[in-house]
Amino acid sequence: MFLYNAWYVAAWDHDLRDTPLPRTFLKQNIVLFRTTEGSPAALEDRCCHRCAPLSAGTIIGNEIQCGYHGLVFDRDGRCVRVPSQVKVPPGAAVRSYPVVERHRWIWIWMGDPVRADQSLIPNLYWHADPSWRMIGDYFHVKCHYQALTDIQLDNTHSRFVHPTSLGNDGAIATAPRLRREANAIYGARLMPNSDPPPIWRRAADYQLEKADHWLTWTYRPPGSITFDVGIAEPGTGAFEGNRSRGITIYNSHGITPETERTTHHFWTSSRNFRCEDEALTRTLGEIRNTFLEDVAMLEAQQRTLEVFPGAPMIDINADAPTIQARSLLGRMIDAEQNAPAAAVRA
Amino acid sequence: MFLYNAWYVAAWDHDLRDTPLPRTFLKQNIVLFRTTEGSPAALEDRCCHRCAPLSAGTIIGNEIQCGYHGLVFDRDGRCVRVPSQVKVPPGAAVRSYPVVERHRWIWIWMGDPVRADQSLIPNLYWHADPSWRMIGDYFHVKCHYQALTDIQLDNTHSRFVHPTSLGNDGAIATAPRLRREANAIYGARLMPNSDPPPIWRRAADYQLEKADHWLTWTYRPPGSITFDVGIAEPGTGAFEGNRSRGITIYNSHGITPETERTTHHFWTSSRNFRCEDEALTRTLGEIRNTFLEDVAMLEAQQRTLEVFPGAPMIDINADAPTIQARSLLGRMIDAEQNAPAAAVRA
Amino acid sequence: MFLYNAWYVAAWDHDLRDTPLPRTFLKQNIVLFRTTEGSPAALEDRCCHRCAPLSAGTIIGNEIQCGYHGLVFDRDGRCVRVPSQVKVPPGAAVRSYPVVERHRWIWIWMGDPVRADQSLIPNLYWHADPSWRMIGDYFHVKCHYQALTDIQLDNTHSRFVHPTSLGNDGAIATAPRLRREANAIYGARLMPNSDPPPIWRRAADYQLEKADHWLTWTYRPPGSITFDVGIAEPGTGAFEGNRSRGITIYNSHGITPETERTTHHFWTSSRNFRCEDEALTRTLGEIRNTFLEDVAMLEAQQRTLEVFPGAPMIDINADAPTIQARSLLGRMIDAEQNAPAAAVRA
Repeated sequence: MFLYNAWYVAAWDHDLRDTPLPRTFLKQNIVLFRTTEGSPAALEDRCCHRCAPLSAGTIIGNEIQCGYHGLVFDRDGRCVRVPSQVKVPPGAAVRSYPVVERHRWIWIWMGDPVRADQSLIPNLYWHADPSWRMIGDYFHVKCHYQALTDIQLDNTHSRFVHPTSLGNDGAIATAPRLRREANAIYGARLMPNSDPPPIWRRAADYQLEKADHWLTWTYRPPGSITFDVGIAEPGTGAFEGNRSRGITIYNSHGITPETERTTHHFWTSSRNFRCEDEALTRTLGEIRNTFLEDVAMLEAQQRTLEVFPGAPMIDINADAPTIQARSLLGRMIDAEQNAPAAAVRA
Repeated sequence: MFLYNAWYVAAWDHDLRDTPLPRTFLKQNIVLFRTTEGSPAALEDRCCHRCAPLSAGTIIGNEIQCGYHGLVFDRDGRCVRVPSQVKVPPGAAVRSYPVVERHRWIWIWMGDPVRADQSLIPNLYWHADPSWRMIGDYFHVKCHYQALTDIQLDNTHSRFVHPTSLGNDGAIATAPRLRREANAIYGARLMPNSDPPPIWRRAADYQLEKADHWLTWTYRPPGSITFDVGIAEPGTGAFEGNRSRGITIYNSHGITPETERTTHHFWTSSRNFRCEDEALTRTLGEIRNTFLEDVAMLEAQQRTLEVFPGAPMIDINADAPTIQARSLLGRMIDAEQNAPAAAVRA
Repeated sequence: MFLYNAWYVAAWDHDLRDTPLPRTFLKQNIVLFRTTEGSPAALEDRCCHRCAPLSAGTIIGNEIQCGYHGLVFDRDGRCVRVPSQVKVPPGAAVRSYPVVERHRWIWIWMGDPVRADQSLIPNLYWHADPSWRMIGDYFHVKCHYQALTDIQLDNTHSRFVHPTSLGNDGAIATAPRLRREANAIYGARLMPNSDPPPIWRRAADYQLEKADHWLTWTYRPPGSITFDVGIAEPGTGAFEGNRSRGITIYNSHGITPETERTTHHFWTSSRNFRCEDEALTRTLGEIRNTFLEDVAMLEAQQRTLEVFPGAPMIDINADAPTIQARSLLGRMIDAEQNAPAAAVRA
């Protein structure tokens, strides 16, 4: 089950250059392209004539031409030209999707186009703000998208999955505070005078044994999670906002279902200190390996789930954030499915 | 759906040497082999004893021996020897198929053997005629066989799929004349004073800007298409048969279903001029890359069709030949399926 | 269909070192590990919390820790620790399987644990006896386990599948004597004054043209076959037990279903003569290639069976041992399935 009336991250801005990009979201095959004018476009990746994929075609100005018989479609999906005849047949068109370029990412709306309100796109200003330094990447992960959400929201796994980078004992000992709104969940794990995770210790060149360590996040279903994490000298007010004696990192995750078994994972890690320090950028770039440890665990879990379909699961206390997150998304999907005027779906 | 009572190209003559060749036609697993006497044979590729594939066995004289327990079968499928006992068990046999070697290809009849009339094999004499020079190859294509027929019969695609070899603007601007008989369709696209396709221009070392260009074909369902194509100086009577001021190429296609998603493609390209000119043979050999461009498009189309099962398709005027071809084959299949004495099928 | 109340070979003893080993038996995903104390253990390979595979975790003392959230399980499958909380939730456990290390192999009982009688494990003392020299290996074979049993019990195939090693004409000409007990079948093919198989001729440096050649076996369903094979000078009493003028080889096979289409094959080949002769060990090691010839045939047969589901099979006289073996195993499976108190199954 998917939520359709939502913005999903579809691509990095630099993924769209001068050739079409085929990509599947929510089991729908889509071609993304950037018009010569520079704006992104997204169409069903299937020519309405003989089902050739439009992604095997060519961008021509603000339009895309099928590579088989040359039919041309505009960014609204209308066929505007058939080279071998004068008139375009009635009804010749493919589905188009709303797309927006913002915060270095291309966002796609998979539901009813009239409901595609751009103000619903999360504000990830630090991706492009000159006072921040952002790194990021894209992973194709062979797991259900909710499992990828789970691993982000419950960081008691870090002690076991990321022992040399994010793992610490404090997270295991400290329960997070959760706050729920209509369309978001906020979590805060505050660990005063705790063992700092190895990667933040290295990044800050931190010498004290203990630190105040925080890990707060916002989950906006279905696919956006942002983190504010860091360490500071104990008792210097970091939890209340004084970060002058510590370091702050903002991590963002765009989690977009490809199918029920595969997921697109767009992520960034940003800092607002020593932005020009390339050695530090390399140190913080180790987070990529950390996130690949997540991928390995998630894909192993997915394989196991497929071998034991319907196996019962035992809950533990640490599951509180993931249970709340699944519950909120589940209710949003139910509401959409049961809406009187059903949302547009494939 | 397949047509069973028909000759299909099964192999090149040189594919059959001293070892058995496993190949699947119309979803039936078959072993082809050449007897020591030199004639081709085709049996169900399954020993009647314990289902070992006979293709893992050995040719012994005019018979084939299973590689597991040594049972021997003659070319009619009868088990003639069981090494570990004196008598052959009653009923020990596998299905055999009529096969004929002709025009450098091995042809197989997939239906009722009593209806296997060799006079129905298309006459492709130029494959072996000393006044012709033939090149050819075999492709395994991951698409439905009718899609491969389509791409051959509608050459408006050449402008887009083969821009550097067969593509020309004339084909897009000129509708073909079609003529239909009981078991064949003839098409003729005559393009006077038109832009010659690049590969024929190179082959003829043609210097004029315009040429009379023709492309005529015969489709004999289910699997045979032959082309007469070429260019000549404008107004020199090439369309009426005078080829003295131009060049003529005969292309043949043997299109044989393997499964509903995969197809065997046997093809040749033949010329009757400068037959000894090896540089010219190399130039004309570029047609192989052209046909591989077809394969890439067909496999992309097949993948898309599988993602959008049952998607509607919009027809355009250029579809006339492929619509007629599918209609004719469809009626032949219907007639076979509804025949009072049902044809033999697997 | 599988027999559950039985010992199956699960691994070589040296397969279990300091990391968990995931392996599937009878379609059940299992993690094998060796505790720090040294004894083998086997659990369902699925954490009861969120279905991560325990095989992606870590052995800690006599327990195994899940690599996701750190839950710890003892060798009986009980969850004994959840790092992020004090108490273990009620019902937190995974299935455990009886395992025994014996004769260099790890044996697993897939049925009701209370019936796991260790005295039912076949006595393969020669695997570890200092007066024997054993070689062996493991193959993963893509075939049904009964097909692998078949190829072992009917050695008329050797003349065709193993012409350069085990093949001989005598086996084809000589029917085996069979004897059946409640839970075993014994076969004896005695070939006096026969053509010795090439590999035994090489191993014995045998110079005479003919030899007394024997091949006797014991099949204990579902997965154990042991062979006593060899050659001796004709008329020197080898069939009656005097092996002084010949050589004796004991081959053992542990055949364990992985799925209905794939099988674990553990095998050994042992001798009790010239045990220190490494050149001889290499010569006898050629049996590995011989068994790989079996694998190639079995996998070809499996592919063919899947293409022709339900195809009829003709029996020949040489099928007597395999028909008896399948019949015995079939009755054991029926008895287990119909037992009043059903055996434990996955």
